[in-house]
Amino acid sequence: MDEEQLRALLRDLDALKQRPDPAAIDRMREHVAGMVTPAAAARSKIKDMSSEVVDSNPYSRLMALQRMGIVDNYERIRDYSIAIVGIGGVGSVAAEMLTRCGIGRLLLYDYDTVELANMNRLFFRPDQVGMTKTDAAVQTLSGINPDVTLESYSLNITTVKGFETFLGSLKARSSDGRNTGVDLVLSCVDNYEARMVVNQACNELGQTWMESGVSEDAVSGHIQLLVPGETACFACAPPLVVASGVDERTLKREGVCAASLPTTMGVVAGLLVQNALKYLLKFGQVSPYLGYNSLKDYFPTMEMKPNPQCSNPACVQRQKEYMQSKPARDAAAKAKMEAEASAADECPVHLDNDWNISVVDDSDTVTPSILSTGADSLPEGLVRELPTADSYQEPVAPVTSGAIDDDLEELQRQLDALNSS
Amino acid sequence: MDEEQLRALLRDLDALKQRPDPAAIDRMREHVAGMVTPAAAARSKIKDMSSEVVDSNPYSRLMALQRMGIVDNYERIRDYSIAIVGIGGVGSVAAEMLTRCGIGRLLLYDYDTVELANMNRLFFRPDQVGMTKTDAAVQTLSGINPDVTLESYSLNITTVKGFETFLGSLKARSSDGRNTGVDLVLSCVDNYEARMVVNQACNELGQTWMESGVSEDAVSGHIQLLVPGETACFACAPPLVVASGVDERTLKREGVCAASLPTTMGVVAGLLVQNALKYLLKFGQVSPYLGYNSLKDYFPTMEMKPNPQCSNPACVQRQKEYMQSKPARDAAAKAKMEAEASAADECPVHLDNDWNISVVDDSDTVTPSILSTGADSLPEGLVRELPTADSYQEPVAPVTSGAIDDDLEELQRQLDALNSS
Repeated sequence: MDEEQLRALLRDLDALKQRPDPAAIDRMREHVAGMVTPAAAARSKIKDMSSEVVDSNPYSRLMALQRMGIVDNYERIRDYSIAIVGIGGVGSVAAEMLTRCGIGRLLLYDYDTVELANMNRLFFRPDQVGMTKTDAAVQTLSGINPDVTLESYSLNITTVKGFETFLGSLKARSSDGRNTGVDLVLSCVDNYEARMVVNQACNELGQTWMESGVSEDAVSGHIQLLVPGETACFACAPPLVVASGVDERTLKREGVCAASLPTTMGVVAGLLVQNALKYLLKFGQVSPYLGYNSLKDYFPTMEMKPNPQCSNPACVQRQKEYMQSKPARDAAAKAKMEAEASAADECPVHLDNDWNISVVDDSDTVTPSILSTGADSLPEGLVRELPTADSYQEPVAPVTSGAIDDDLEELQRQLDALNSS
Repeated sequence: MDEEQLRALLRDLDALKQRPDPAAIDRMREHVAGMVTPAAAARSKIKDMSSEVVDSNPYSRLMALQRMGIVDNYERIRDYSIAIVGIGGVGSVAAEMLTRCGIGRLLLYDYDTVELANMNRLFFRPDQVGMTKTDAAVQTLSGINPDVTLESYSLNITTVKGFETFLGSLKARSSDGRNTGVDLVLSCVDNYEARMVVNQACNELGQTWMESGVSEDAVSGHIQLLVPGETACFACAPPLVVASGVDERTLKREGVCAASLPTTMGVVAGLLVQNALKYLLKFGQVSPYLGYNSLKDYFPTMEMKPNPQCSNPACVQRQKEYMQSKPARDAAAKAKMEAEASAADECPVHLDNDWNISVVDDSDTVTPSILSTGADSLPEGLVRELPTADSYQEPVAPVTSGAIDDDLEELQRQLDALNSS
């Protein structure tokens, strides 16, 4: 929208008041109609995702993931619903990425309004200052991709009423009746209290979620996968994000504010949504925990088992259920492995299989098949940019040609040298 | 801008034509004026960056990097000029990040126009379809941060005339006369030919640049620092990004198109600009090469020395100059180390020192001082989210208590286990 056009309109109205003229009204009408049309016509809804390679197809580069052998059925993304809690520096970018990927339904939660102090992060614009973050997000996202169903909740999930609405919305059927509940919750909040509330809701519902966070000094962050009963919940372990009980509002009141950078938040949002896509569309490996230390470009990973003495009763209940279902899970995994093995003997057909986290951690047969899917099916003329982690050789630290001592410290020193190189 | 408001205006104009009424004109005038004001008032230019913690300060969270002990003088960012070549999925996001960070001057190069097929990546909007990418970028970026000087070049750098203009613009004084030349070039192009052209220009000018790329299957990418004469140039080593001579236009013509994801491109843009900020504002360590394998969340690093037999004559010339200046560099590094050591003996004052890549690789005294700056100066109540890479212990793979064989394969196996865990 051109501000100059509006100024011209004001001058026309002034002239009109001096001398009423039907022809002038017609010209103004035409002018305003011209202002309406472009934005409205820019992108109409699209019924089916097409893989046709034409400039006018917003999904061609996503559907190409199938031809590249990365994803089996990209269009399934339209069947999924994702809830994003916290539409700040990470959540807003995550929402935009999922919108551009054509996710079926996005549920957005935030209680805050847009301020100029948010402009050092991606997504919000100065002309949205004063709007609620959810309204501003819906405004921007619906313009980018009208195919995505957007539901916005301007509420504080840490209040009793807010929590009830939050919990209800995670279970509810979508307005078009296509989806029931959500497939994944992404936590993009900036304080401990809100994380504990998301943790509580997901433990109660047995809802898989991913947590994200950025440090107060703006130079590191993390993402984490939480599957109630199966992985550590947010209350199981001393949380890695420690604000010592001081949340952002407190910090502001004392005249101290946390630093933030669009880079760190963009990287964390990208890693978060990439893992959400891997989880939903079943490709690659979903990281249980991935850190980002930007000063050294260091990315620690780890896994955390649930704590049987967790202070959260819903977590303990989910752990019990998970243990009870172990024999059934083991039998199903075994049957699938056998079926895959015999199918592999007969023909090299690509099997429809289900990469759940529970399968990945005790079955080696799953991982290689993902990689070979990606590596073997590149079209002619294309070469993988990076070697896969399996084939890549880290530059090995100098090793003396003599005997290596039976010495853990020596091994650790070599690992440190590799990590800091 | 609300489309509904424009529709209401159309109805008012229709009514006005039926019955001319000065009061109705006044109401419409007020309405249009209300549409003008917010956008115009949203953000005016700001003379000095303030660290004041108020909602209306767009730089408060960036200036906080100083209080957090990450950056010595954030406002220096206004003195820097960055050229971004290729305003696609990576370059556009890099430009937005730098704009929101308040970079002094951005030079943008692209010859392409916005298409709906670009909508699966961040930044461009459907209503910008048909505009040149540089014009669309200037439109969006100037709205986000009017303090940034934007120069746009809609040209193809791989043509003779385009290359001349490109080379000239990299050396030229800025329009306000504050800056001469650029401080860094970011290459965000999608084909081999354009990378070789950026490489040629930077070798000729002795200009430090960073290269970025995303694989054709959309699931991996990389960034790389190139300092003419000091590191490998793009022609020194067989390039890691191999499109086998097939560029994007060729791919399109054959009905095959490369896949792309907003996630991978957002991560690569974030890593690229984070390293650009580290390089310009002198904090942390600039990565010589950083890969991103998103299927496994694996981030390989490496360093590449220049090739004395490089096919690029300008590269060989820069290598010669770099070798000739070695005694002077060594003497300067030694003098600085001694000055630092004696200063550290006397008082623990934070020294103004110059982290050049040439210093990092043979001096251990530099690294700890960066880390201690960050770690020691956190305000009360704040704790670092992630341990620094130095203090973080990777979960060690099970090691047998017996003697470890003098066996590189065994060490490699353990490293692989750590990398794939």
